[in-house]
Amino acid sequence: MSTRPSTWNVPASRVAKNAHNPIRQIVDKLKVDPNAEKDLISLALGDPTVFGNFNVDDSCNEAVIRNLQTFKANGYPPAHVLIMLKSPGTEQARAAVAEKFNHPDSPLTARDVILANGCSGALDLAINVLCTEGQNMLIPRPGFSLYENLAVSRFIEAKFYNLVVGDSYFNPERSWEADLEHMESLIDDKTACILVNNPSNPCGSVYSEQHLRDILALAEKHHLPIIADEIYCDLVFKGNHFYPMATLTKEVPILSVGGLAKKYLVPGWRVGWVTVHDRNGILKEVHEGILNLSQLILGPCSIIQAALPDILHNTPQEFHDKTIEQLEVCEMAYSLNTKISEEGISQIPGLTAVVPQGAMYMMVGVNIADFKDIKDDVEFTQKLVAEENVLCLPGQCFGYPNFFRIVITPPADRLKEAYERMKQFCARHHV
Amino acid sequence: MSTRPSTWNVPASRVAKNAHNPIRQIVDKLKVDPNAEKDLISLALGDPTVFGNFNVDDSCNEAVIRNLQTFKANGYPPAHVLIMLKSPGTEQARAAVAEKFNHPDSPLTARDVILANGCSGALDLAINVLCTEGQNMLIPRPGFSLYENLAVSRFIEAKFYNLVVGDSYFNPERSWEADLEHMESLIDDKTACILVNNPSNPCGSVYSEQHLRDILALAEKHHLPIIADEIYCDLVFKGNHFYPMATLTKEVPILSVGGLAKKYLVPGWRVGWVTVHDRNGILKEVHEGILNLSQLILGPCSIIQAALPDILHNTPQEFHDKTIEQLEVCEMAYSLNTKISEEGISQIPGLTAVVPQGAMYMMVGVNIADFKDIKDDVEFTQKLVAEENVLCLPGQCFGYPNFFRIVITPPADRLKEAYERMKQFCARHHV
Ligand SMILES: Cc1ncc(COP(=O)(O)O)c(C=O)c1O
Ligand SMILES: Cc1ncc(COP(=O)(O)O)c(C=O)c1O
Repeated sequence: MSTRPSTWNVPASRVAKNAHNPIRQIVDKLKVDPNAEKDLISLALGDPTVFGNFNVDDSCNEAVIRNLQTFKANGYPPAHVLIMLKSPGTEQARAAVAEKFNHPDSPLTARDVILANGCSGALDLAINVLCTEGQNMLIPRPGFSLYENLAVSRFIEAKFYNLVVGDSYFNPERSWEADLEHMESLIDDKTACILVNNPSNPCGSVYSEQHLRDILALAEKHHLPIIADEIYCDLVFKGNHFYPMATLTKEVPILSVGGLAKKYLVPGWRVGWVTVHDRNGILKEVHEGILNLSQLILGPCSIIQAALPDILHNTPQEFHDKTIEQLEVCEMAYSLNTKISEEGISQIPGLTAVVPQGAMYMMVGVNIADFKDIKDDVEFTQKLVAEENVLCLPGQCFGYPNFFRIVITPPADRLKEAYERMKQFCARHHV
Repeated sequence: MSTRPSTWNVPASRVAKNAHNPIRQIVDKLKVDPNAEKDLISLALGDPTVFGNFNVDDSCNEAVIRNLQTFKANGYPPAHVLIMLKSPGTEQARAAVAEKFNHPDSPLTARDVILANGCSGALDLAINVLCTEGQNMLIPRPGFSLYENLAVSRFIEAKFYNLVVGDSYFNPERSWEADLEHMESLIDDKTACILVNNPSNPCGSVYSEQHLRDILALAEKHHLPIIADEIYCDLVFKGNHFYPMATLTKEVPILSVGGLAKKYLVPGWRVGWVTVHDRNGILKEVHEGILNLSQLILGPCSIIQAALPDILHNTPQEFHDKTIEQLEVCEMAYSLNTKISEEGISQIPGLTAVVPQGAMYMMVGVNIADFKDIKDDVEFTQKLVAEENVLCLPGQCFGYPNFFRIVITPPADRLKEAYERMKQFCARHHV
């Protein structure tokens, strides 16, 4: 029998209440009145398009326009008559991803590809298919906050394994490696998977083949599948090399996630994918499960799906080379070559930049003891907005206090200006 | 201490296993060898774009192309510097939806609009924010199968309230009304909301103002919020009128869901929305919760978000008028005017069409007793493929046996041909 309440009471669901963003409280603290005499320089948003200096290649736009104009790509993808069921993407789009990421050591077919709404959507699928409420997953610290957000929203425990800063000046290729001992200590019978992010947001690190093999060995020892977040893939600086994790193992099952957002400079287009790297059928049920889930999530915009083969196969290599060159210029001027240029951020007393090797970020350490009136990274970034109108995300947004993250995509003159302001800021607050 | 398994065992999560599509098993039965001497006529897919006779308006394409060419709409929406958090859509796109659906009796602002990946994504948000695992929601039978799929995937019980066929010939405006007594009998202390779909897929029904008020009165009596799936909105035939549910109540809180898919003929673009119609703050927590959830789901493609104000405000009314006219031609020829044209589907012995009033569907009853070798709707549609290569979805896909659903968007000559084939088919199998 019904025992309905006698007044209105419409609570949010348990899931909705739980889905708050873990970094919102931190970010809210940055909402201070900025110094109105200076214009804003934001080094906060991992979106390379905001300054107008990183634009998608014309050929990609043209592919989208061509498909719009056919009027043949407006329907539900795919429109095969017997697939009334919503889908993991069109056959052609999935095949294009498979072909692009196919590798002799980890072959892919269209069947292994599930399209999603951005890499975020792909991460949600991967986490959701591998982890059940009450289980846990291992995620990197510092790391991209969405991992925790997605896990927690599904009542999956996020366990953080440490990344080790290392001595980035003498041994840059080892910076931000996973502390394997710590990682192993977190594994228990409720652990469902390990998430590895390479190249890394927020670190800008690119792992060596050996380090990836070491992580794989640990995963193999404990029979844990890996989610490899490889959204930055080969956006790596000269002298570094990106190894797709799935190409380094024949034993460990891997779900790789990626997308157009970063490498093609179109985060707003919301096209991502999961590639399923099964090993001897270990992922049979997971593969089926992810297809189930994709029926609910639905895929990215059909027009962009239709353009995906062109985008992936016909974007000129020079476009990507130019993107990397542009990133390198920033990286060189403001971190690694600090000793030479006398301009790099590490030349500022109180700050230590960790040399990035790829992606579009740099972590900068704040030596709190050097400052007289700044108690941590949040206060540092807060005051930096208030006094200099330069916005950076504090390390606490990535679970890593007393660092802050710089996005290195602004035009060089803006970065230089930001650096000048930081220098003055630090001088004022230095002990 | 870890007690990891000593071999590989990577199961799919509880959620993924549960997320199977309830109609897949039925649809699989239609995968029979079709009569290869006839070309396929599919009346199965609720996608108006597949035949090429329903195309998006050029002005919408142009709006998208203009926004592509600015290179300013490729970033994360919105790119306000302090909103690093993913978002319910750009301010402009949300404002455009608010303005379009604003009504003196249910005013809307941009804040009340949450963009989603298609109306499916909007439904997922609405169900996910209102219902907690273990609760139940009331959904129509016959009804769109995604409702059950979404509910079940989140361990929410789907309770089906009956729609009543009625006497559609004499009283067409009352067909497929909700059986309110039955609806009320399903309500218990675990009921979280009532879903109402108007105009309806699969019924093609359009509810009268009075019937909507009757449902609202029941919801008010039991203090139940409503999810109003109004994706077909004013795609209604002459003589019918669409009443947005939120405009008919000042008491019942409503989440309306809609999108571009049907009215703008672009289901593949994946743009949908939830509009929150709060009453005296009853939905305060739900409103906050849906914003939380939208940070995980992320929004539709940024380019289309950027074009949304143009699409919603500047698509010429003649475009919509033409769409409805085209649908009316099909509807007239093949259902209502059967007595006149002698061609309608109801003229086929053994079949009874229920006159649709809107959307793009028609339900047709199969009088099983009239057939000598057909035991139900699934067998009817199965044999119809095998013998005539005409594909329709059996009523069981909508929880309603011994009917089948016709999508009325194919060009008139294809529909006519399909009807001819059905006539011959029925004649062959008639007792
Ligand atoms: C490491 C990492 N993974 C995933 C994403 C999400 O990518 P998308 O924009 O395609 O959802 C980001 C975005 O910043 C990221 O940095
Ligand atoms: C009643 C109803 N609601 C929602 C949807 C889903 O709409 P969308 O394609 O925008 O996800 C459909 C699609 O057929 C539908 O018929």
